[in-house]
Amino acid sequence: MTPRELWERFRTLRFDDPPLGLSLDASRTPLDDEALREREPAMQEALGAMAALEAGATANPDEDRMVGHYWLRAPEKAPTADIAAAIRDTRTRVLDFAARVHEGGVKPPRGGRFERLLVVGIGGSALGPQLVADALGGPSDRMAVRFLDNTDPDGLDRVLVGLGDALPRTLAVVISKSGGTPETRNGMVEAAAAYRARGLAFGPHAAAITQDGSALDRQAREQGFLARFPMWDWVGGRTSVTSAVGLLPAALQGVDVASLLGGAAAMDEATRRRETRRNPAALLALAWHAVGEGRGSKAMVVLPYKDRLLLLSRYLQQLVMESIGKEKDVRGRVVHQGLTVYGNKGSTDQHAFVQQLRDGTPDFFVTFVRVLKDREGESLEVEPGATSGDFLDGLLLGTRRALFENGRPSLTLTIPDVSPRSLGMLIALYERAVGLYASLVGINAYHQPGVEAGKKAAASVLDLQRKVMVVLRERGPAGGTCEELAAAAGSPDEAETVFHLLERLAANPDRGVSRRAGASPFDAVYAAR
Amino acid sequence: MTPRELWERFRTLRFDDPPLGLSLDASRTPLDDEALREREPAMQEALGAMAALEAGATANPDEDRMVGHYWLRAPEKAPTADIAAAIRDTRTRVLDFAARVHEGGVKPPRGGRFERLLVVGIGGSALGPQLVADALGGPSDRMAVRFLDNTDPDGLDRVLVGLGDALPRTLAVVISKSGGTPETRNGMVEAAAAYRARGLAFGPHAAAITQDGSALDRQAREQGFLARFPMWDWVGGRTSVTSAVGLLPAALQGVDVASLLGGAAAMDEATRRRETRRNPAALLALAWHAVGEGRGSKAMVVLPYKDRLLLLSRYLQQLVMESIGKEKDVRGRVVHQGLTVYGNKGSTDQHAFVQQLRDGTPDFFVTFVRVLKDREGESLEVEPGATSGDFLDGLLLGTRRALFENGRPSLTLTIPDVSPRSLGMLIALYERAVGLYASLVGINAYHQPGVEAGKKAAASVLDLQRKVMVVLRERGPAGGTCEELAAAAGSPDEAETVFHLLERLAANPDRGVSRRAGASPFDAVYAAR
Repeated sequence: MTPRELWERFRTLRFDDPPLGLSLDASRTPLDDEALREREPAMQEALGAMAALEAGATANPDEDRMVGHYWLRAPEKAPTADIAAAIRDTRTRVLDFAARVHEGGVKPPRGGRFERLLVVGIGGSALGPQLVADALGGPSDRMAVRFLDNTDPDGLDRVLVGLGDALPRTLAVVISKSGGTPETRNGMVEAAAAYRARGLAFGPHAAAITQDGSALDRQAREQGFLARFPMWDWVGGRTSVTSAVGLLPAALQGVDVASLLGGAAAMDEATRRRETRRNPAALLALAWHAVGEGRGSKAMVVLPYKDRLLLLSRYLQQLVMESIGKEKDVRGRVVHQGLTVYGNKGSTDQHAFVQQLRDGTPDFFVTFVRVLKDREGESLEVEPGATSGDFLDGLLLGTRRALFENGRPSLTLTIPDVSPRSLGMLIALYERAVGLYASLVGINAYHQPGVEAGKKAAASVLDLQRKVMVVLRERGPAGGTCEELAAAAGSPDEAETVFHLLERLAANPDRGVSRRAGASPFDAVYAAR
Repeated sequence: MTPRELWERFRTLRFDDPPLGLSLDASRTPLDDEALREREPAMQEALGAMAALEAGATANPDEDRMVGHYWLRAPEKAPTADIAAAIRDTRTRVLDFAARVHEGGVKPPRGGRFERLLVVGIGGSALGPQLVADALGGPSDRMAVRFLDNTDPDGLDRVLVGLGDALPRTLAVVISKSGGTPETRNGMVEAAAAYRARGLAFGPHAAAITQDGSALDRQAREQGFLARFPMWDWVGGRTSVTSAVGLLPAALQGVDVASLLGGAAAMDEATRRRETRRNPAALLALAWHAVGEGRGSKAMVVLPYKDRLLLLSRYLQQLVMESIGKEKDVRGRVVHQGLTVYGNKGSTDQHAFVQQLRDGTPDFFVTFVRVLKDREGESLEVEPGATSGDFLDGLLLGTRRALFENGRPSLTLTIPDVSPRSLGMLIALYERAVGLYASLVGINAYHQPGVEAGKKAAASVLDLQRKVMVVLRERGPAGGTCEELAAAAGSPDEAETVFHLLERLAANPDRGVSRRAGASPFDAVYAAR
């Protein structure tokens, strides 16, 4: 391609929308007129399905649920007046609660104000709030935010100990759609214990976001939580960031949530366009389809050249991989679909893995995220005529070129700044693109059947552990090997799992399991102490 | 496979080494007796090449350098007495400097003690220190650590503003092997400006780690840095964490660096074994080779079930992808090798992308990292008979099983705890495994030719920007379109890059470029203000 042809191609394949303030360049992907024409019927079908979904069709047949995250930004589009009222009411209550916390109307029992925020949640109840907190937060936040997003005892301790003397002035927000997620329940129980250790009741320091009537909702009532906010069955966890899940932590932190919602709403409008070339989500989905041949054959490497967008790739890992990574298509055929997402930030990653991107296996495409605004205020020159921001952008443009010259495709998204509005736009853009892409490849984007398997397997491991502990106590000091104990627990086929369980229990003195070494690790003898 | 056969397979393919305290289970990969036998000659060759490398062979023919990171843990193995003395001397000086900072012998000019640490570096000069700081740090650190690891103006501001009133008591450690990395230079210049804005000279608040005689080394001398520590050409950036690069920040933070080095040394000893089945690095490399058919056909998903190991995957992204992602093999044949690494932590990632891992494209293998020790102190029961740690481990074992049942391979590394010694072991294990794997696939693990291309392209973009700014100033208020300005700058083929440059300059008011909209974004007219 001559430079002139490439310039023409760029002008044709760069989507611009000045009022929106976002542009998308697909000129470095295989998307071209022919690729667009080929896929136009499928895209029109996808846009039609999306319109039906927004009108309240049951788009999640497995679970018989509606999919309504778009209504969160435009309650007037909700299929019933009740839903519209619930969205508006919740938004008002979120803003009101945050204002009262900031003003001190809602305050800690020991006095003072709530100065810190501790968000307890995992997956869809953490990644969105984490993205918003890191992208839009800083030293001047109204409340500094920390997260408990796992069930790692040491990880929980590190955060809770780190809060230190601020704990009495820390507001805990517990988020679980189902109200029964074990990691979140555990985080809450451990957090409550930390408050209790300081003579503080948990409830008067806590708010909950969960479905009405869930286990968490009941606990919140019983323990006198400061507030309860709803989740609805028509909002999926991975698209919940514009519900109370994302809005409450953001509002407490001091983020302008109205702008975040406004940005998402503006992008929703733009991505409802039926004219493919004027619809950035359609173009994004088509570019993914063209580059990965509809099979996800190339991983999506997300490289925002902006520190604040470091967590974008983690957010998109969930949104994209949990939506697209499916065994079967909507007709029940085994397809093993997927679209892998990874990446951190530029130019930092250029010093990490861009070596492989440029020279190694051509199994990916890059999404550059380019931010036009450098910083608040003026820049100094780090060398004559050049600022830090000039280097950052030069490194982006240079890497994009070097990859292109080596036949590595890339998309470039340009946004004006990292503001609540721009972040809302990005979130809504990817939500819609994922839905459209799922239609193109014929899969259901709105369920996650595989997640259950790991949970069930984990539950059976915990069950086995309980049985083994009973056997250990019965056997007394004689104890047994993992094979003997597995057999005694009625699970002779589970010797390996019993081995793993005992290995760990014996490594934690408080669990009361001793270990005597044997001829091999598999011959060690375990006993209850 | 029957449960009995699987149990036998597990016993055969689990590497245990009680004195070392690390185990590696390859039973859920395609590695078996036959796969091991087939690869034994290649592995013996790889181990021989590694022995030669440790003895001082020039293992980096492109750059005519030795590769000596193993000597950092065993200076007596260095090929010359000078090198051994330099390693020992540097280690002593690092510990001595950290002790004097802690005791207040080295102190800020305005008085008090250095309480904070600001590490300025990128890539190999940041990822190792970041991993160590996050894995081993906590609320009781001697000095809290922050990083400047990019040239993002807003990102720099956020860290520097966040230091706030602590800046006068903040010790900056600037790390650049070459002493000329632009991102690090920019970070240092901006940090120095922040000190200057408070009336403070940078030098008396700074230490440098760089090669003798580099640009950074000269600046450190001229500006009166508190200390300078050496980097050597025989230590690659991505294997520099056991040099001063990793040791100085760790020692200042309060980490027991002797244990870190001890763990690495113990692992080095274990991974020098010529008996493949007794060498965990050899087994790891062979498992990668078997699972990815020697072509990196499956990505390595790193899932440590421990919050402290969140950054392990980012560290390994660099170590593995920069080492293995190569266009050509050692004979010069085009091979496009690579081994993609991604992941964050378990169980958190189970709520993000494990859906795809279980049900979607089978293009990966998981490395579970299992930590036996739950926490300091005792655990409470989150439900009868179960602790948070029981859930964490149950989720790991359950996910491993669910993946295996769906034909998804996994490796499991078990370590006793996240201590300096264990982290040292992990670091040394992967360093050696990467070197051995590179030998198996016939590539040079110790260069990064592709990194230069992006840098050169970035430099040419900056050069073009300077020319465009000259043209803009010459033209005055009339200005021009991107095409006109590109032509006037002598680069008519660079209209697109000029378009990008002007788009960004006009978005930053301090850059003095105005923009008048045109019929299309490409027809906008830019002028110097």
